Amino acid sequence: MSSTLLAEVLRGSEVESRHTGAFAVADTEGRLVLWGGDPDRAIFPRSAIKAFQALPLLVSGAADTFGLSGAELALACASHIGAPEHIFVAASMLEKAGRGEKCLECGSHWPTSSSAARALAAAGRAPGPLHNNCSGKHAGFICTAVATGRDPSGYVSPEHTTMRDVTQAVGAVTGINLAGQTPAVDGCSIPTYKMPLRALAAGFARFGTGTCMPEGFAAASARLRRAVAENPVMIAGAGRFDTVVAEALGEAAFVKLGAEGVYCGALPALGLGFALKCDDGAARAAEVATAALLLHFLGPNEVLAGLAAPRLTNWNGVLVGGLKARLV
Amino acid sequence: MSSTLLAEVLRGSEVESRHTGAFAVADTEGRLVLWGGDPDRAIFPRSAIKAFQALPLLVSGAADTFGLSGAELALACASHIGAPEHIFVAASMLEKAGRGEKCLECGSHWPTSSSAARALAAAGRAPGPLHNNCSGKHAGFICTAVATGRDPSGYVSPEHTTMRDVTQAVGAVTGINLAGQTPAVDGCSIPTYKMPLRALAAGFARFGTGTCMPEGFAAASARLRRAVAENPVMIAGAGRFDTVVAEALGEAAFVKLGAEGVYCGALPALGLGFALKCDDGAARAAEVATAALLLHFLGPNEVLAGLAAPRLTNWNGVLVGGLKARLV
Repeated sequence: MSSTLLAEVLRGSEVESRHTGAFAVADTEGRLVLWGGDPDRAIFPRSAIKAFQALPLLVSGAADTFGLSGAELALACASHIGAPEHIFVAASMLEKAGRGEKCLECGSHWPTSSSAARALAAAGRAPGPLHNNCSGKHAGFICTAVATGRDPSGYVSPEHTTMRDVTQAVGAVTGINLAGQTPAVDGCSIPTYKMPLRALAAGFARFGTGTCMPEGFAAASARLRRAVAENPVMIAGAGRFDTVVAEALGEAAFVKLGAEGVYCGALPALGLGFALKCDDGAARAAEVATAALLLHFLGPNEVLAGLAAPRLTNWNGVLVGGLKARLV
Repeated sequence: MSSTLLAEVLRGSEVESRHTGAFAVADTEGRLVLWGGDPDRAIFPRSAIKAFQALPLLVSGAADTFGLSGAELALACASHIGAPEHIFVAASMLEKAGRGEKCLECGSHWPTSSSAARALAAAGRAPGPLHNNCSGKHAGFICTAVATGRDPSGYVSPEHTTMRDVTQAVGAVTGINLAGQTPAVDGCSIPTYKMPLRALAAGFARFGTGTCMPEGFAAASARLRRAVAENPVMIAGAGRFDTVVAEALGEAAFVKLGAEGVYCGALPALGLGFALKCDDGAARAAEVATAALLLHFLGPNEVLAGLAAPRLTNWNGVLVGGLKARLV
């Protein structure tokens, strides 16, 4: 497995830990413009491709049928932290489809934001499926199923018609034939397929530019990118990497975290997409590496510079080290 | 940097992520019996050497002066999860020394156990320094300072007499001259020094056997090991790796986690110690690798087998993959 150094973790001036991985930056035809490690490594993109999985929600007409707002479309692409604003928007999507929380098949977990989890506990409440970080994506699947006249029940199965449409959309954007692959199961119970980094990068280049995609996908992609840029808190949550990037860059970039150290994204003005996998699955390394890629391609930016080299302070606020991107 | 594969993370039957690192298993004289990667790599052991740092508490007579219990001695070696039992015991140590929570210089953070954090929030409370995972160690430093007639104020500084004693004890057990090294700062503000894996392993072999150490250290080491074996919940917390191992193995093994993917431990009956560092700092990999080392040296054990190959289930309880140790 060919890898490259992505990031180092410093304690004082010494390297304490290090993260390796692979990445590909490609144009809409899959031509590489920058890479490290094996750019054709097949990875599970996990939640990094939620935007692709949300395309049928728009292409099918479901988003218009139910009059989904920008915040709702952004949440369909999100891994949210379970703050009250996310719960409100996910519930609203289900309500528009005439369904309730019980239709969600993602499972329940405490909000990934520890402060949101504590606030929920302090209110004497327990989490439900709306608090699952994927509830917006799942609400989008339910909207798609209902608007197209299908029973949403069992929508997480790879055999459900709506999930077939989702898988087909992912295959169409990335150019990968997923039909022959037996998927693994994601954290929220939907299927997850292995895909080469380069194909994911090319897919995001297409998502960012609207080229080389089936009819209707270009408009749907642009609408999702705009929705996230206009509702940055929906894509993750206050202070989280994806939200901070969306706040700082608007439509100049689209970036999305996936579990186990994955990041994918689009740089629309440059006609490029990227996909990155940290070997060990660490989000912290994937984040600083992504910030470094954005800096490399978009030029100096104070927010990105901070994200590419975060400082580590201890419980007394003493500076004890930091992370440094090392991939470019 | 020479590394070896420590563990793989599987999704379905596919490898999704992988962790590399280095480890050394050595006898009391530093002779290697097993290793992977560079056994002489210098690492920050972080909290993995809290037991060494607790030796002056016993050797100085402070533990007897204040009549510290086994639970209190175990907590002095601990990275605890901030559950009520840990807070109670840390407060008791301070009370015996005639000091209060305000003397702790470790800083405050929410309990590392998310359920303990939520319970604290639900009770309308905020965390204090007693909830810091290092509060037992710090209470031990304060006991040592007070019993030996020193003002504990500023005890986290490498120049404080008590911290000098602590550093000297670590040097004596590991055989490393730390005097010439400018330390980095740990999460709880005490100094942290770089040490070769092999020297750490030899130090733990001595800690486990009581040989090759200054006068009084053998009895102190045995007392700390017994304290942890008899109070396993103190070393970490219910369900945590170090506690589960102590519950399963008693005095047959002593293992301790350190931040950034470190594990150290002793196998007293075999006269061996070990030290392990996961390159990327992941605790999950250091844990499964440690379980595999224990299995390798101690023979079949159902609890260890489970710890060496944990199953991953998703939010619906569906089996989605697992971790597998790959170092032996």
